[in-house]
Amino acid sequence: MAIRFARRMEWVKASEIRELLKVTQRPSVISLGGGLPAPESFPVAQLQEVAHALLAAHGPQSLQYSTTEGDPGLRAHIAARMNARLGTAVAADDVLVVTGSQQGLDLTGRMLLDEGDALLCESPTYLGAIQAFACYGPRFVEVPTDDDGMLPEALDRRLAAHPNAKLVYVIPDVQNPSGRTWSLERRHAFMEVVARYDVAVLEDSPYSEFRFDGGPLPSLKSLDRHGQVTFLGTFSKVFGPGLRVGWVAAPPAMRDRYTLLKQGADLHTSTFNQMLIAAFIDRFDLDAHIGRIRELYRRRRDVMLAALDEEMPDGVRTTRPLGGLFVWVELPEGLNTRELLVRCLERDVAFVPGGSFFPNGGHDNTMRLNFSNASEERIRTAVGRIAEVVRAAIAELEPAEAAVASA
Amino acid sequence: MAIRFARRMEWVKASEIRELLKVTQRPSVISLGGGLPAPESFPVAQLQEVAHALLAAHGPQSLQYSTTEGDPGLRAHIAARMNARLGTAVAADDVLVVTGSQQGLDLTGRMLLDEGDALLCESPTYLGAIQAFACYGPRFVEVPTDDDGMLPEALDRRLAAHPNAKLVYVIPDVQNPSGRTWSLERRHAFMEVVARYDVAVLEDSPYSEFRFDGGPLPSLKSLDRHGQVTFLGTFSKVFGPGLRVGWVAAPPAMRDRYTLLKQGADLHTSTFNQMLIAAFIDRFDLDAHIGRIRELYRRRRDVMLAALDEEMPDGVRTTRPLGGLFVWVELPEGLNTRELLVRCLERDVAFVPGGSFFPNGGHDNTMRLNFSNASEERIRTAVGRIAEVVRAAIAELEPAEAAVASA
Repeated sequence: MAIRFARRMEWVKASEIRELLKVTQRPSVISLGGGLPAPESFPVAQLQEVAHALLAAHGPQSLQYSTTEGDPGLRAHIAARMNARLGTAVAADDVLVVTGSQQGLDLTGRMLLDEGDALLCESPTYLGAIQAFACYGPRFVEVPTDDDGMLPEALDRRLAAHPNAKLVYVIPDVQNPSGRTWSLERRHAFMEVVARYDVAVLEDSPYSEFRFDGGPLPSLKSLDRHGQVTFLGTFSKVFGPGLRVGWVAAPPAMRDRYTLLKQGADLHTSTFNQMLIAAFIDRFDLDAHIGRIRELYRRRRDVMLAALDEEMPDGVRTTRPLGGLFVWVELPEGLNTRELLVRCLERDVAFVPGGSFFPNGGHDNTMRLNFSNASEERIRTAVGRIAEVVRAAIAELEPAEAAVASA
Repeated sequence: MAIRFARRMEWVKASEIRELLKVTQRPSVISLGGGLPAPESFPVAQLQEVAHALLAAHGPQSLQYSTTEGDPGLRAHIAARMNARLGTAVAADDVLVVTGSQQGLDLTGRMLLDEGDALLCESPTYLGAIQAFACYGPRFVEVPTDDDGMLPEALDRRLAAHPNAKLVYVIPDVQNPSGRTWSLERRHAFMEVVARYDVAVLEDSPYSEFRFDGGPLPSLKSLDRHGQVTFLGTFSKVFGPGLRVGWVAAPPAMRDRYTLLKQGADLHTSTFNQMLIAAFIDRFDLDAHIGRIRELYRRRRDVMLAALDEEMPDGVRTTRPLGGLFVWVELPEGLNTRELLVRCLERDVAFVPGGSFFPNGGHDNTMRLNFSNASEERIRTAVGRIAEVVRAAIAELEPAEAAVASA
């Protein structure tokens, strides 16, 4: 007797990095590895109050089955907030609540991707999205990306070269992992290119509320004139990812299909958690709450950038993120951050090797550092230890390589 | 510009019945249609107490990301409870917490089914499972089933005839929709048959705690000697489906694959909801709580069966469920319950036409009646109205047909 698996199980691989990072659960380890929000930013006392009131007023309803589409009150809040901040014109009925934005990734892959279809993405791109999409067997096509976003001409060439491209997946606001934010000009240019092709766009936007200065830029969704863009949002960085509540705002041609696929996948997202968030927004000042988180993260980013500037040797490049949770670091060629991670773990400090964020591999000299989940003091300590390991590794490079690296 | 969808979207269809039943949200309608637990059975006051204590003691942790596998405390409770009541020998590490058992169905289809693979199931079977599996393009093979469960010889013949059979999906305890419970003898015979084939078994068991007399029978999982059976459980009928917490207890060959697929699908199930349930089990007497729900449902079942006996004309057959939430009704041949549903909705009463539970169609003279979600009074009223419609429809049958029907 043997279990016979579906062919897609060959495409789905355990992340060796996730395995390696399991040791970071030891309290002695300072992890810049995960993408965890600061737990001290969660509105625990307010949620306690809201949970009590919700169960008192709507206990049975909040624990009962509900519609796949989601709680009407929450959908209205989401639409209003998107329209006010991101320039969209989304109705509450356009919003489907999902079980964390990870589910939005899965449902998008499920709706669009047959085996072998091309999926275009930034280079690097979000690791969780690679994992979600891999299950549907696409060919990942990385599109060159600079500090202003995806390069429109490069995108155009790739769309022309891949007539089976079904989906362009992008994170225009303080991207994970690179920390980059697309310029307004680049957003317009991107939309002009995709409008020439029969291709859907997934705009993953977990951090649009976490641009530290000047507020969010118009979302791609707000610039969409052809019903191409699905917007993916989440409350994970606002209330805590432990509630698993995100949303999809899809164009008309895709909206009911998302609902149908979600019905098969998990019926609906927790009624209780949806009503809890809606009640919080009714009762408290969400903008003020998010503003406090932004200030906390801004200070941590500043501490991290200052520590990197001070501690890292010449030849190391870092992005200057306008917000979000991450700084992206590029070490001299020839260094391998997977090897450096092993050495760092011996020193009780962790990060994610950047190669994990490139679906087709390479870029082994890069790393992603998270600044949201550690105190300023621990960020300084961790960057100091990582820099020590980097300096030692550079010194070990062959003299010729080292000369090139520091040139 | 047009969106191009994956081929699987041709297989995923909206349920016309779900659309029809949307009108049952009108308060005037008495719905025996859904599978909703009684809202008055939800332990609202206790959950209020537990939520307060949980946020006070572990607020940040309960709102943070957690492992895909699930909360360790909850997994230990689940394993202990299964072993005590269902005869299994499951370790906490064998348990994967999922976002409602619907997600367990989806992940199982994902792991096993390639397009065209045979999936064997009872006839009838659970509608939500048909929806979950349809996305993976299997060929549904219905196995004849009587009041004692799936017929082992019929199963054997079909497994022999379908070498591409990957999965046998069954609900041995007070099945949805039929209300049937497999006999112990039939369970043994079933396991002997499947052990001769390279096939996985999914034992879906949402109602094993809701057998009204004599406690649960040994689960198929407890009789599994070859690592074939995955057990699927849920807290939806115990605490409320609005929390969306279920679990999978899989054999070794499948366990890590479930975790990997779930990671791509939604990262993990709500940390907060998992810890809430674990804390409830720590603090309150779960058996006593479930016992109260059982008594409530037993009375409602008795009322429904008495009303059916009294009101339904000759030629109507009903199952005598030992527990669960549903009675299955077979009307005389020639009647179509989809048509009768339209007439019943005009009289403000609803049920689910039984044809929806047969993946290959037919059986249009059957219906599923839910007894968990309406008061005894409303159950009597609803059965009375449905019986009126049935009597009128029988009278309209051609005289010859009517004669056969009542023979």
